[in-house]
Amino acid sequence: MDIIIGHINVMGSFVFAISGALVAIREKLDPFGVLIVAFITAVGGGTIRDMLLAERDVFWLFDTTIIYAILAGAIIAMIFKEKLQFFDKPIFFYDAIGLGLFTITGVQIGIDYKLTPLICILLGTVTGVFGGVLRDIIVNEIPVVFQKEIYATASILGGILYLVLVEWNVSNPFLQIIPISSIIITRIVAVKFNISLPTIYKKEQ
Amino acid sequence: MDIIIGHINVMGSFVFAISGALVAIREKLDPFGVLIVAFITAVGGGTIRDMLLAERDVFWLFDTTIIYAILAGAIIAMIFKEKLQFFDKPIFFYDAIGLGLFTITGVQIGIDYKLTPLICILLGTVTGVFGGVLRDIIVNEIPVVFQKEIYATASILGGILYLVLVEWNVSNPFLQIIPISSIIITRIVAVKFNISLPTIYKKEQ
Amino acid sequence: MDIIIGHINVMGSFVFAISGALVAIREKLDPFGVLIVAFITAVGGGTIRDMLLAERDVFWLFDTTIIYAILAGAIIAMIFKEKLQFFDKPIFFYDAIGLGLFTITGVQIGIDYKLTPLICILLGTVTGVFGGVLRDIIVNEIPVVFQKEIYATASILGGILYLVLVEWNVSNPFLQIIPISSIIITRIVAVKFNISLPTIYKKEQ
Repeated sequence: MDIIIGHINVMGSFVFAISGALVAIREKLDPFGVLIVAFITAVGGGTIRDMLLAERDVFWLFDTTIIYAILAGAIIAMIFKEKLQFFDKPIFFYDAIGLGLFTITGVQIGIDYKLTPLICILLGTVTGVFGGVLRDIIVNEIPVVFQKEIYATASILGGILYLVLVEWNVSNPFLQIIPISSIIITRIVAVKFNISLPTIYKKEQ
Repeated sequence: MDIIIGHINVMGSFVFAISGALVAIREKLDPFGVLIVAFITAVGGGTIRDMLLAERDVFWLFDTTIIYAILAGAIIAMIFKEKLQFFDKPIFFYDAIGLGLFTITGVQIGIDYKLTPLICILLGTVTGVFGGVLRDIIVNEIPVVFQKEIYATASILGGILYLVLVEWNVSNPFLQIIPISSIIITRIVAVKFNISLPTIYKKEQ
Repeated sequence: MDIIIGHINVMGSFVFAISGALVAIREKLDPFGVLIVAFITAVGGGTIRDMLLAERDVFWLFDTTIIYAILAGAIIAMIFKEKLQFFDKPIFFYDAIGLGLFTITGVQIGIDYKLTPLICILLGTVTGVFGGVLRDIIVNEIPVVFQKEIYATASILGGILYLVLVEWNVSNPFLQIIPISSIIITRIVAVKFNISLPTIYKKEQ
């Protein structure tokens, strides 16, 4: 299981690095600024997850592959910055993939530490969401998690689905692929069709 | 003592969740946004405190009661959002209670780890203050700790009082109730009567 | 080596406290606000470094000297706030010294933990850079690391130089003094002569 989590960490870092780099490029930062925002976006969520667990070293400290994945993502974003825009909202697209991948690593690590299901889901959401939140705080934007369309909700639903599949003993590639895809698809559908949670405020505002 | 700290953690999380949720409601966030701001406000200070101590797990990871207390606080704030305004400044009111409760947990944990008195007080202030600071950074406000009226000062004075009472072997309910109340009252009096620290700047600015 | 790191931590905390206090004074914060910004600036980078390493206690928890150094820095800044302006950019000056000092502690701790060279350098940069980043986020400025002139680059180059000197078995005072000075001088020269990284954006934007 640790090997799979390791692979997902590398992939998640790569796509989140692209999303972070694209935000930094939009803000016209210099190359090192782009690298730093890519790095914080990529490792932010997983770093907070690992710092919450006292006996756990931060995932990228002993795994240089992750640093290379981030460098690759940031450099690709800098070189192909126009080409990456084949989707109308490329930042959102890479962010959605990262959200799906990292949520599952958080839930699985929660299971490994025998935390309660509620806290496993919370750990998944922290892992999936906080890279993007830090990215947005750093460039002084409203964090993506507070935008109108479903975001944390997608992460939470995917986390619950993963716990159910673990309970049902679903075997290995599907166990991860189904909830990861469900998070990415939920997020893409929410943005495409502008789906948001019901409001708790009166209309006339 | 651990049981008492546990109870105070639950109460502090509850009131800070209300204060966080009220800020998020004022900013018109959707229900999940409100939950997330409530969560960060409630656990922020204690989480930083526990991450500073290498061998200590974060307090809410193994205690689902705290998550329920936060959910309760956030939901109550969403349902009774108009009713909670029986004070003219409800956010400030719940924040003051949380400041009092959490400061004492930080100082006590410092004592448990045999830290020096100065660092015990610092740990109390970090625990009491940082939930509100994170809440305000996230919604892009000036952190409450930098506002004119006495805030960190109340936490520091309460921390010193707690250390003195521990030294005097004051017995259990009073040991906590006296410094917690003193922090809450100091804060309320400071805001009511607009009391602030003397300025270090020249008048004509 | 631990003693030297300890001394550098105290000096770095002192100069970063001055830089943080000067920023807070410019923002007209009250005395406690100045203290808090000084504290966060001084310990921010090293605290994140130590939280990343699971078995490591945060450096200032068991070392009251650092707290005194921060108090001294903040009080000196408050008393001599006009006198400290003998340089036209005093905040930048103390920040540069702190960047040099703290970068080296991060790289050395990485070596102690037998991390790969790439991650040692990264740890040095996190230690050197994040105190100033937190200071700037708190007072709502663009983080210094994203400003035009070379900043993180100076830290990275100094980290590489330190690793090379360690490899060459350079003896003790020079081992630290050379890379620390090189970071400070690089930063000062970059600001004086307005040197920045080449842009990745087209001119006409």
